Parts: sequence; structure tokens; C-alpha cells
Amino acid sequence: MAAAECRRVSPGDGGQEEDDRVPEYRRLEDEEGLAPGEEDEEQLLLHVTEGWGWTRGIHHPLIISLTPPHIYHFHQRNGFACVLLSDILELVQFLFVVTFSTFLLCCVDYDVLFATRPLNHSHVPERAKVTLPDAVLPAPQCARRLRGTGWLLFLLVLAGAVWLCRLVTALRRLVGYWEIRSFYIRALGIPALCNHSWQSVQARLLALQRRQPLCVPRRELTELDIHHRILRFRNYTVAMVNKSLLPVRFRLPLLGPVVFLTRGLQFNLELLLFRGPAALFQNTWSLRPQVKRAGARRALARGLARAAVLLGVANLALCPCVLGWRLLLAFFSYAEGLKRAPGSLGARRWSLYARHYLRHFNELGHELQARLSRGHAPATKYMDSFSSPLLAVLARHVGFFAGSVLAVLIVLTVYDEDVLTVQHILTAITLLGLVVTVARSFIPDEHAVWCPEQLLQRVLAHVHYLPEHWQGFHPGGAAEPPGDTPDPHLRAPPPRSRNRGFLPQLHGGGGGGGRHLLLRAAGRASPRQPPGGDRGDRGGAFRGRVCSAGVSTSLSPQWLSEGTHGGPPGAPSGAREDGAVVDALRSEQSPVAAAATCPPLPRPPAGAGDP
Amino acid sequence: MAAAECRRVSPGDGGQEEDDRVPEYRRLEDEEGLAPGEEDEEQLLLHVTEGWGWTRGIHHPLIISLTPPHIYHFHQRNGFACVLLSDILELVQFLFVVTFSTFLLCCVDYDVLFATRPLNHSHVPERAKVTLPDAVLPAPQCARRLRGTGWLLFLLVLAGAVWLCRLVTALRRLVGYWEIRSFYIRALGIPALCNHSWQSVQARLLALQRRQPLCVPRRELTELDIHHRILRFRNYTVAMVNKSLLPVRFRLPLLGPVVFLTRGLQFNLELLLFRGPAALFQNTWSLRPQVKRAGARRALARGLARAAVLLGVANLALCPCVLGWRLLLAFFSYAEGLKRAPGSLGARRWSLYARHYLRHFNELGHELQARLSRGHAPATKYMDSFSSPLLAVLARHVGFFAGSVLAVLIVLTVYDEDVLTVQHILTAITLLGLVVTVARSFIPDEHAVWCPEQLLQRVLAHVHYLPEHWQGFHPGGAAEPPGDTPDPHLRAPPPRSRNRGFLPQLHGGGGGGGRHLLLRAAGRASPRQPPGGDRGDRGGAFRGRVCSAGVSTSLSPQWLSEGTHGGPPGAPSGAREDGAVVDALRSEQSPVAAAATCPPLPRPPAGAGDP
Amino acid sequence: MAAAECRRVSPGDGGQEEDDRVPEYRRLEDEEGLAPGEEDEEQLLLHVTEGWGWTRGIHHPLIISLTPPHIYHFHQRNGFACVLLSDILELVQFLFVVTFSTFLLCCVDYDVLFATRPLNHSHVPERAKVTLPDAVLPAPQCARRLRGTGWLLFLLVLAGAVWLCRLVTALRRLVGYWEIRSFYIRALGIPALCNHSWQSVQARLLALQRRQPLCVPRRELTELDIHHRILRFRNYTVAMVNKSLLPVRFRLPLLGPVVFLTRGLQFNLELLLFRGPAALFQNTWSLRPQVKRAGARRALARGLARAAVLLGVANLALCPCVLGWRLLLAFFSYAEGLKRAPGSLGARRWSLYARHYLRHFNELGHELQARLSRGHAPATKYMDSFSSPLLAVLARHVGFFAGSVLAVLIVLTVYDEDVLTVQHILTAITLLGLVVTVARSFIPDEHAVWCPEQLLQRVLAHVHYLPEHWQGFHPGGAAEPPGDTPDPHLRAPPPRSRNRGFLPQLHGGGGGGGRHLLLRAAGRASPRQPPGGDRGDRGGAFRGRVCSAGVSTSLSPQWLSEGTHGGPPGAPSGAREDGAVVDALRSEQSPVAAAATCPPLPRPPAGAGDP
Repeated sequence: MAAAECRRVSPGDGGQEEDDRVPEYRRLEDEEGLAPGEEDEEQLLLHVTEGWGWTRGIHHPLIISLTPPHIYHFHQRNGFACVLLSDILELVQFLFVVTFSTFLLCCVDYDVLFATRPLNHSHVPERAKVTLPDAVLPAPQCARRLRGTGWLLFLLVLAGAVWLCRLVTALRRLVGYWEIRSFYIRALGIPALCNHSWQSVQARLLALQRRQPLCVPRRELTELDIHHRILRFRNYTVAMVNKSLLPVRFRLPLLGPVVFLTRGLQFNLELLLFRGPAALFQNTWSLRPQVKRAGARRALARGLARAAVLLGVANLALCPCVLGWRLLLAFFSYAEGLKRAPGSLGARRWSLYARHYLRHFNELGHELQARLSRGHAPATKYMDSFSSPLLAVLARHVGFFAGSVLAVLIVLTVYDEDVLTVQHILTAITLLGLVVTVARSFIPDEHAVWCPEQLLQRVLAHVHYLPEHWQGFHPGGAAEPPGDTPDPHLRAPPPRSRNRGFLPQLHGGGGGGGRHLLLRAAGRASPRQPPGGDRGDRGGAFRGRVCSAGVSTSLSPQWLSEGTHGGPPGAPSGAREDGAVVDALRSEQSPVAAAATCPPLPRPPAGAGDP
Repeated sequence: MAAAECRRVSPGDGGQEEDDRVPEYRRLEDEEGLAPGEEDEEQLLLHVTEGWGWTRGIHHPLIISLTPPHIYHFHQRNGFACVLLSDILELVQFLFVVTFSTFLLCCVDYDVLFATRPLNHSHVPERAKVTLPDAVLPAPQCARRLRGTGWLLFLLVLAGAVWLCRLVTALRRLVGYWEIRSFYIRALGIPALCNHSWQSVQARLLALQRRQPLCVPRRELTELDIHHRILRFRNYTVAMVNKSLLPVRFRLPLLGPVVFLTRGLQFNLELLLFRGPAALFQNTWSLRPQVKRAGARRALARGLARAAVLLGVANLALCPCVLGWRLLLAFFSYAEGLKRAPGSLGARRWSLYARHYLRHFNELGHELQARLSRGHAPATKYMDSFSSPLLAVLARHVGFFAGSVLAVLIVLTVYDEDVLTVQHILTAITLLGLVVTVARSFIPDEHAVWCPEQLLQRVLAHVHYLPEHWQGFHPGGAAEPPGDTPDPHLRAPPPRSRNRGFLPQLHGGGGGGGRHLLLRAAGRASPRQPPGGDRGDRGGAFRGRVCSAGVSTSLSPQWLSEGTHGGPPGAPSGAREDGAVVDALRSEQSPVAAAATCPPLPRPPAGAGDP
Repeated sequence: MAAAECRRVSPGDGGQEEDDRVPEYRRLEDEEGLAPGEEDEEQLLLHVTEGWGWTRGIHHPLIISLTPPHIYHFHQRNGFACVLLSDILELVQFLFVVTFSTFLLCCVDYDVLFATRPLNHSHVPERAKVTLPDAVLPAPQCARRLRGTGWLLFLLVLAGAVWLCRLVTALRRLVGYWEIRSFYIRALGIPALCNHSWQSVQARLLALQRRQPLCVPRRELTELDIHHRILRFRNYTVAMVNKSLLPVRFRLPLLGPVVFLTRGLQFNLELLLFRGPAALFQNTWSLRPQVKRAGARRALARGLARAAVLLGVANLALCPCVLGWRLLLAFFSYAEGLKRAPGSLGARRWSLYARHYLRHFNELGHELQARLSRGHAPATKYMDSFSSPLLAVLARHVGFFAGSVLAVLIVLTVYDEDVLTVQHILTAITLLGLVVTVARSFIPDEHAVWCPEQLLQRVLAHVHYLPEHWQGFHPGGAAEPPGDTPDPHLRAPPPRSRNRGFLPQLHGGGGGGGRHLLLRAAGRASPRQPPGGDRGDRGGAFRGRVCSAGVSTSLSPQWLSEGTHGGPPGAPSGAREDGAVVDALRSEQSPVAAAATCPPLPRPPAGAGDP
């Protein structure tokens, strides 16, 4: 994992590795015998040579962070100044939340603030004004109250420990980013990031590799290689969500099927599968060797199950603190918005599940974000165009009741401001205003235009995927019969794709590794598998995504005629499609062999959720 | 009017009735001899047969509500649950408004609320907080004050009576809707309405009629028949508005010509013409027999005039109560909106007159609503693009005056909150804020783009009708010379019409009754009749709508070449167009004969307005 | 300058003047010998003849205002009623601001308002309400305080003098506009302006000239002539901004190059160049005779420099008053908007410099306004699509800090309204709310779609000009290679131009004077000159605008083939282009001769700015 592991590969090595990639369909046993060293050659992309001088000769272990993911994240986080400022401010924010909460709990005299206890200003006899310092307890009294509450002290110590952890993490990350900044400036020649898109950074990276080969086994580095290395874990996650391997769908007693995927659950899953000590990967790139051995699978599954249970127990133990912290943060972040702009709290966002479900393989984060942003406006309109008539009737009348009381209170207040001093009048006005606002949001606009089919088409034009059970959901309104348009995506291709730079390259390559999944799921608009189906089975029940099939249908005549894919076009098999998935995930092996020998993509136990 | 009147018609009967519909141009006298029983056969569409079992054998008189209008309204009101909830909540709302107003009048001690009288809390000596219960009078005192005011007691008794009437009405309606719900579930097979458009409900209704003929004289039921039966009264109203027969246009001394058509006036007109005891209809479908006799017309007109006078007197007597109730409701509904979002009160809506003026014949309510909704956004923009420069100058300065005082008050308040306790400061701030907001709304946007021609085109694309005196209103801006485009509608057809389902049927039918007016006003862009013209004359002065003519101009080459309409295409006569109007209204007679014998469409006296 | 100077020109005179306009390329010396009388013939467009009777025989000197600029401004200000109301209200507003400020300074007892001093209401013992009149000092006390402050008295006297000046100016202007109103009503036959566009007014003016020749040397008056006369000074200003002759660009030590052009600076520049006693023009139309003599140039430049210094000194002396007045007006105008709608204060407007930079020659004010309004929405979106990531990080955290404190304060206030009476709580809430709002405005929208190229294209479609250093600013995103599209304007012509009426006339005319600059800068996409270049040189470094060159490139094949312009199309020279500029400015001379003899367009010293 150190920079020393990264060595310059001779042309001969690369050629041999290229030969390994020629598709051989019976190398199942050979794969297990793969020496670990051979794989480690691909671990790090970049080689530190003294010839550049951008590290001033210091080869400390932090050079590890110079992998493509870090280079990409450095670009996405807009350079070192932004990272530095953001890290500092987040540390300050943590301190602020803790101290401000403690201050509110211990050092404020609410009796003075709420005027329930008269203030004994002896020097001002009549109508003394209460000032803010009057309501703040003096420091010694405050410290005494703080010492009196043991649990608060414990929480403060805990928070201090967490803050120290974050400080160390931030410092380590900053040192790493400082290295990357030097790399950007000296090796890539990009002093300021603001005018460089990732495309141009990537182009310079490729040019650098061509000019002076970095620590990679291959001579020629393509955009696809970089995408693969950046999106290694992400591709796995997308595939698991795509094939419903992750335990994110539940069937609740009353609510029916729901999807539960929070950032906490995602963090736990990543810890379990990719990053933790029991994970399948030994670093950000290569699988652990024992994962590839067929005999060790049972033991691995047991280890994974044990890790999941441990992780669940840890989650359960930390649950109160995490929950309290989350509530505190949410209050501080959104409470004033509730008063200032209640409508903004009802704004829709793409859920985390949607971000995984709708992601293409090998799609970078900013590309996905741009795609989803373009689809956000029509998707919001589409969602808002549906309204429950029952709820609308209820909301109309609740709004009337609340609004009429509110109107009387407001008129009284405006007529004489002394009404405001009556206790809880302001509370009532605020709460009634909230009720009215919420009720209004459920009443559909009188002049709303109802055209969900067109909106759905516009959403699909950007989003590209449609759940299978939505097919033919709007049969009545469409001008075309729903029969001959099984896939809306077929007629609404994305108007302008951002990754023009490397898509043609993907089409052209014959037997190269790491092909885009969209080009493999050939010739079928196969239905998406129901969530309760047989997940682990790799036989024939395994299907691609609806829309990916649609795209490849329109593309297949050109590239299927090349005949490089073995099977006849008319008989696409699940195994070949499967191979495409795994191929997208693990490009270091020959694609078809991988289809048979791929690791079993273990299904974590359902208990490893976010508490 | 009972279900017993509805009997299964034998095929022979139906055939004879079909023969009656063959156009005969000289059956003027025969029409008057039409036996009442023969017409009653068409009264109810649906027949209650034991074979379905959906009424469980109970044939109570409420089965009357199972006519197409009720079936349509049941669908439009989103099913039984919505109707039930809405009815209950409206009854509760009535109770709430009455009790809350009474409470505010009798049971609140405003002296305490406005702090004009000190509260004698003996137990809390210093700075006692006023709470809400302090400001509410105790129940006995409240009841004493209530008993002391006789007019309030009278109003409460009146409100109780009205509430009981509404309760009974709602109960009757709910029982009827319960029947329709059973019909939907068992006969049509639609358990839940939420996913069924009216098109699909109608299709099932037609299929049901084909499978098992209901109580209708005809074998084959078309969409047009159903539309006719649903829109019987509405078509009459549209025709009367179209031909300026309703007394809704006045010429006020200062304001010039205005249109006055409120919901109250519409309710009175419907009571007078369609639903009341002196109405022309004996039920929702058939005219009273004496209306069809030429000799009885004078007596009928006298009766109608007498009914109108009576209705006017009743309106005048109830005026104070109705007006007070309306004001109360308006205050409770809109007062808080005035404070919260003053701009929403200035939002434009289609007036009731526009809804009648712009309605096609045989256009269902939700179709009209969809059309007007699509036209709402450009129409609002079009209206907002005009601004009086004089008013803008005035508003700019008034806004400055109010805004400067408001700014000083706000700054003082923000600097020291004690300014708020000065009497009427809050009142001043609120009122000045309102003045500023209203003034701002009159100032045109600095960056507004002025293109009224395009906006009008976009409005017309959805709205289809243009008042005749607007022709050539924007000659300067259009790129085309105004001479060769007499009708803006010609160049902007509606982009997607919702009633694709039955429009072709309308085109194709040869001599069938009930043709759409749009298809009759052939080949002429005839001017709309001025309001003061001869209304009753059916000779040649009678013209169709401007835009309808435009549409039919573009359609005429196809269907005029069929030659089924008698007159030569080049010489369209007013009488034939007239026939189309009446034809749209009364489809049970042969179209051309109806043109001569139609009931006189009596013009109500002008006194029957809404007080 | 009086009406007496305006005499009917005989056809012979006009013909001779027409002959003078035939291009002669060597009349350099002759121009200087031009008699002043010959030029004065063009001074006034309109002749007052008794035959119309619209002035009732009174020929007072105010008839001078009947020039095309006044006729145009009368139309743009929407007629006499608007002008009258606007003038009255502005005078009232001035009075209001002065008196209200004085009242706030002298007549308000802030101790009572802020409740720092108890009110000694002897008659109301307990909890007396403070009313507004309590806080206003009685008149004698107020007058005493006013007399005590000498500087305030001085300012009041000054304000009174200014107000009297404004009153006299307004009265003179109103009398002039009354004349124009009569001219509109009697000569042009337009009683009410509201339905007449300037196009139609101009057409009537031209028709009037054809019917009864006014006081112009030419028989036939074209739209271009009228535009020239209206935009005489404006064309000069546009040309000076275009060629960077005005001192509006500075290079500040920290901020880099900035553009400083305020209304005050513009007023000073106009005073210096066009309207003041040392100006180059002797009236609104003709240059002073000595300007045309080559020998007097040095003396003129000295005079201009002296005038600029004097003007600068006057500006410096008046600076405190003007600045105070501006601050007062800004506070009264915008302070309440800061509280009510803070977002509206951040709205973008076209700067004054942009209005000059983007203006075509001979483009009327309302045409420019319409063009800029159409480009405003995409320009705002374009500007908003850029955001500094560093600033966003900062704003996000500052917003969190302010928002969390604000949330706590709001929750406390809503829970118990007595918190509001604590001193400066309301101040804190307001200020924190402002901070949060401002911080929010710096955080980019999460779902913003990033497509600056398209937005820039849409801006350019209306705005027509692009600074030269912006060329190829978005090379990465555009689908086309940036090489073959040097000018975005070429591919995005303005979709609908408002001045269709006279553009073809501009194309067709052979050797007529006053050609549009856009049609002269033939066949080159020449770069815009950098600001620091040689400004006065007329040799070859002088370039047209980027976009004007673009437009003329697409237009040149048609009109260059006519061969009326001397030079071959393939060798466009800077001198000819130069001639076009001057030609647009001074149409009374032959275009090419003017290129050599034009007045030197003196560059005012940089000290004449707005203090």
C-alpha cells in the first residue's frame, strides 16, 4: 500500500498482461492461481519519479493518496483552498454546535427571558428594560450547573473525542490534498482549477502518461481505465442495487413496500463490504486473494456475517448519540427555514436510492449530478401533478378552519399590538400559519395543466431508467398505442450527453476489458427482476435494466454484426449479460472467464442497517 | 320521474324511433302532436334490472339519480369517499363559522385583550401575564349577553334552519351517490375511481349498453348521446350566452359596458329556466309538453315573467343575510392571505361569463377546465402585459411615500422593540406594507418583454374564441399583414385536444342529430352579433361564433364534399347555422325540422338578477 | 434657436443640398468654408405655419421644443397627463423627503418611543399606553430645536432653492409639452397616445411632411432622418464608448480593471460636450462653427479642459449635499424592500455602460430597451450560473451559524412572546435573518443545470455584442469546434427585430448619408481594440465592433456587389469604417469627406468624474 509497491512496468510486462486479457473461456482454475504481486501492479496509477521534482524528494507514505479517485475528488471539491476552508469550518461548526447547545442548556436564565420571574433591578425603579445579558447566567453559576449534570459532562467528553478524531482525519486528508495540489501544479500544469473541467484534467493526465509512463502496467491509458479506477466501489454498489442484492427494500405492515437507504446505512454497507477490516477488498483497488478461492467462500461468508453483527451492535450502541446529534443538527439547520420559507422544506430531492438506481456504470459523480439536475424540474412537476382528491378536500377545510382563526388573530393584532402580549398569541399565530401553509400545499392548483405523460417523457429523457412496473402507466393519454412502445427511453434519448469524449471509444473496442453495461444487454427489453426473487442465482433469471436494454437495442445492429462476442445475436444468454456486469466491475480479468469465477457478491444480513 | 317510468324498450320501438330521425323537412306540425309518453322513454338512461343485483332488490325512488349527469358528477367528484368527506366537512364548516362568529361577538372580553382595562389578578401582584383564558368571558356571562341581543338569536335560528336544510339535502345526495357507487362497482366493474378517466368510464358504460341494453330507446348508444344528456342544460346556457340572450351585459353610467354574471345570478337563472316550478323542463331531460305548443307561448312567457318577479322579490328579501354570510366567509377565507401573500389575491381567474362564452357545445366540464387551464398562463401574461402609464406614475410615487414612512417605522422597530408597544405602530406597518405591495403591483416590470400578439395567439390556441371587436387589435406587431389573417385561430389550432375519442365520430356522422356547432358554421368568418342587436330574430342576422367559423373553414373541404347537408357549400344560410345551435340543444328531433319549431328560448326579464 | 430661424426652404435649395451629398472624396478644405447659415437650415424639423392653427397664432420662443427629440420623448413619456402628473409628484416628493427628514430629526421624542424615559401620564396611573402623538414634540419645541441647528437651516434653504429651480424647469417643460400635445392632436391627429406606437406616430409625421413640407431642407423626409435628429447626441456617445474614448475604464490597485459610468458622470459628460456653454454644439443639432476650423482645435481643446476642471470643482463642492441626498433617497426607496423582499435587492440590471456599449447606432431608446429586456432573462441566468466555490463554502457555514442562532431566537419568541420585549432581540432576529438570506443567495442551487454556452447564445441573440476577449470563452462545452465559429452572433441572429420598418431602406440606399454602422464594417470579424490602445489614431488600428462585423459579414454579399462604395470588398480599410462611424454621427456632410475632416472628438480629462 506504500509508494514502494508501485514500480515501473517494463513493456514486456505490459504486453504479457495484455495477452492475459485475450478472452479465454476456460481459465477458471488459472484465475485462482494468480499471484498477488501480479495484481498489485495495478494498484497505483501514478509513479513518483525524481525527474519531476514536485515532491521535493520527500517520499513519505502519504503518497498513497495520489490515486485517480483522489485526483478526481480534489477536482470536484474545487481545489485545495476550498477543501481547507471547508475542513476548518466544519471543525468550527462542530465546536459551535456543542458549545452553543451547552450554553443554551446551562447558562441561560429562562425565567428572566420569559418574564415569569421579575427582575430585581434595584437601581432602576420603574419599567426597567430586560437586556440580553440579564438573561445570561454569570460564568461561575453556569460552570456549577454544568458540573452538576453528569451525563452532560460525559457527552462533552465524547464530543471532544469525536472532534479530535475529526481533526486528525482532516489533517491527514489535508496533507494528502496538498500533495495532489503539487501534482496538479507541477505535473499537470494546472495552477488554478476554476477554469478546468474534469475532461481537460483527464486529458492532461492521459497526455502525461503517454509522455512519461506512470506506475501502471499498461502502456496506453484510456479514459475508461481512469473511470474504472475512480468508480471501483461505486460500480459494485450500483450493480448490487440494480440486482436488488442490497437489503434496502422492505415490506412494512401498513405502508406496503418501502425503500430504506440512508447515508448511514450506505456508510455501514461500505464499511462492511469495501473498507472495513472484514471487507472483500484489501485496498481501494484489489480484492483480497482469499476471496478468489472457491473453497474459502463459506468461511468468508461467515466472517462477513460476523462483521455485520458486530457492526449492528456498534450501531445500536451509538444510536442515542448519533440520533441526538442528528436532531440537533437538523434543528439548527432547518428550524429558521420553517419560519422563513416553509415551502422550501417541501422541496423534492433525488433520494440516495434513486442516485444508485439511476446511475450508469462508469458514470462519474458530476455526470450523474448533471443528468439528475436536468431531470429534476420535470420530475418535480410530474410528482406534483398528482394529488389525492381526498387529501385535497381535507386540506381545503383544515386550511379554512386554521385560516379563519388566524385571520381573526391577525386582525386583532394589527388593530392593537397589545394583543401580542397576551400569552401564546404569537405561538398560535405561528402554528396556525404553519398549518395553513401545509394545508395549502396539498390543494392542487386550480389552473394546473395535467399532462403526466409528457412530463414522464421529459424525465426519462434525462434519467434513462423506468421501473418495470411503471410500463404502460399512462396508456390513456399517449397518442401512440402503448403496445409498440415498450420502452419510453427508446424514443427519448438524452439530448446531449456530457461524456462525448469517451463514448465512441467504448463502442469501438473489440475484446477489451471493462465494457459499458449498456452495450452488453443486447437485444432484449427484459423485465426487471422482482425484489423477492432469487438473487444469488446466476442462471437465466438474471436480467439487465429495462432502459439499458432499450438503449442497446437501438445500438445493437451496428456492433453485433462485428461478431466479436461469441454468441449469436438472436440468442442472448443471461450468462453473457452477467459477464457484462462483472466486467464492468472488475476489468483486470478476462471478461468471460470472470463471468464464471467472479466472487459471489455476498448478500449482507438484514440486521446491518442504520439504527 | 320515478324509476317505474323507465321501461325496457323493445327492438321494434327503437327501430321506429330511429326512423323518426330520418331527416324530414316538413314535420313542423307533427312535432307538436308528439305524445308525452313517447318522449318520456328517453328520460332515464339506465334501467334497474334484477339481473344485476346491485341494488339488492330495493327499488326506492332515489334511483332517479342514476342518470348520466349524476354518473359524471360522481366521477368528477372523485368517488363516494370524497363526496362524503366533503359533505360532512361543509356541514361542520357551516357550524364552525356560525359558532365562531357568535363566540367572537359575545364571549370575548376585548378590553382585556387590548389591555385598556387592567386585569385584577390579586394573587400575582407584579406584572401578571395576560393569558388567553383571561380574555374569554365565563359561560354564564356569555349566555346572558347572547340572550340580550334579539337579532343575533334570530340569525342563529335562521342559520339552524339553513343547516338542517343542507343536512337533509346532503343526506339525500349521499344516498343517491351510494347507489351510483354500487353501480360503478357492480355494473361497471370500477371499484376505485382514482385510475379511471372519464373516457374509460364512458367506454364501459357504452359496452354495458351494448351487452345488456339499458332503459334507452336506442339500440346503440354513442358518446354523443351521453354528452347530450349530461350537458342538456349547459348547452342551453352556452347558446343563450353565445347569442346574448341572457341579461348579463349592462352599460353603466361611468364604467361603460360591463358584464355581470355571478354564481348567484346563474343559480337564479337556472332556477327560473331549468329547475324551478315554472321552468320549461319537467325534469332533467324533457321539456314540458305545453312548451311545444305554439299557442301556449304567450301564457308561458307571462308565467315566466311572474316567476322572475317572485324570484327577484325573494332575492331582495334574503339579500342582507346572504350578503352578510358572504362577507363573513370571504373574511374567514381570505383575510390571512392578505397578510401572508398579498400577491395571491390579485391572481386572475377565468370569470363565470368567460366559462360560458368560451365553452364549446357538448364540452364536458373537465374538458373545458383543461382547455382553460392550458390557456390560463398566457392569458394572465397577456393581461399583465398591459399597464396604464398614468397609474404606474401614480403607483410609483404612492409606493415611495408609503415605503419611506414604512422604512422609518421598520428601522425604529428593529432598533428598539419598544417602538412596537406604541399604539397602532403595528397597524401602521401592516397597512403601509399593504399599500406598498398594492402600489408595486401596478408598476410594470422594468425588463418586461412586450409581445402581446404572440401571447394572444397562445391564448387563442387553447381558448378558441375571440370577441369580434378584438379582430385586428394588434395589427402593427404581427409579421404578417393583418389583412389576410382575419381569424387568429386559423393559424393556431389547439395543439392537442382532449376529446380525441369522439371528435372523429362527430365528423363522420351523416344525418345524425346533435352535431357540434363548430362543424356547422361553414365557410364564413362571420362577425359576432353586437349585444344590442335583434336577439330573437332567427332570420339571417344570426351568426355563429367567430372562431368556430374559423375552425370549420379549415375543416369544411372534407365534410362539405359529402353533400349530406342539403344546402350548397357556397351559400351557407343563417337558418342552417341556427339549426345547428338548436340541434346541439335538442337532439331528440330531426335537425332541420327543429330549426323551425324549436322552443322560443325565452329571454328572462332583467329583474331576475342576484341582489 | 428661435422659431424665426426656421424658414421654409425652396425646392431649389433642397436640390442643391442634395447635390452636396453626392460623395466627393476631396472636399476636405471646402468643408471648413461651409457657411453657418447653410447648416442651420437643418436645425429645426418642423415649421410653424398659420395654416394649421394649432398654436392659435402665438409664436413664442418655446416653439423650439417642437423638435423630433421632444416629439419622441413626449411619446415615450405617454402623453401630457403622465408628464404633468409625474412632474407634480416629483416636486411633491422632493418636498416630502425634505420635510419628513426634518421632522424625524427635530420633532420626534425618541426617548418616549424607545421607552427609555417613563411617560408621566398623571391621569392614567397604571400601565398607560404610549400613543404616537406622545412621541411627537409640540410645534414650538420642534421649531426651537430647528432654529438651534444652523447647518440644518442652511440645508433647508438650499433645498428650497433647488426646489424652486426644479419648479421653474418643470413649468417650462410643461409649457413645451403642451405645445407638443397640440401638435399631436391637431397636426398629427392623435388625440390619445395609448394605442399609438412610435412607428405609427413617425408614419404620420412623414405623411405630414409629404403633404405639407415642414421646415426642412429636404423634400423627402425618411425615418432615418428622424432617427438621426432624435439620436444626435446619443450616437456620439455610443461612438465614444465604442471606441473607448470616454474615461470610464479604470485599473484599480486590487480590483483590476473596472468600469465606472454613473448617471452623474454621464450628466457631467453631456454638460461638457453637448449642452454646456463650452460644448461643441451650439444647439441640439448643429456644431459650433469654430469647431470645424482646423486652426481652432488647440484653442477648443484648451477651453474644453478648462471647462472640465471647472465642472470638477463644482462637483467636488456639491459632493456632500448630493451624496447626502442620494443616501436619503436610497434609504427611503429601498430600506423597506430590504425587510420585505431581500432577494429583490440583488436583482440584476443592465448597467449604464452596457446600455451604451450594446446600443446600435440610430437605435431609439425603446428599441434598445426592448432588445435588452428580451436579453435580460438569459443574461441573469447566465450570470447566476457562475458561483465561486470558495464563497459557497463560506456562505454555507456562515448561513449555518446565523441560522442556528436565529432558530433558537425564533423558537424562544414563538414559545413566549415576552422574549420579544427583551432589548435588541428583534434587532438580532432581523439582522440574522438578513445574514441568512444573503448567505443563501451565494449558495448555488443543488439542481442547477449548467449550460452557460446556450445561455450566452441566447443572450447574444438579443444583445448582439460580445467583448472581444470573451471569444472562445466556452470552448469545451459547445458541440461545434470553436475554430470555425469566431462570432456567436453569426449563428444567432435576433429572432424578430422591431425596426423592420426602416431596415430595408437602409440596405437599399446607394450613396445617401447617415448609414448604419452595422452595414459598413464590411467583411471582417475584426477584434475589438483593447482599452489601453491608441484612441485618437484614425489610421488602421481602428476597428468596428465584433458583432457588427459579424452581421455585416452575412449581409455584405448583397450590398457590396452594388459597387457604390469605392473600395474593393476584399480590402476593407479602417478609414472607410471610420467614415461609417462619423457618417452615422453627422449626416449633413458627405460621408467620406467627413472621415477626414470630422471634429476631433476630444477626450475629456479624467478629473471630470462624478464625485
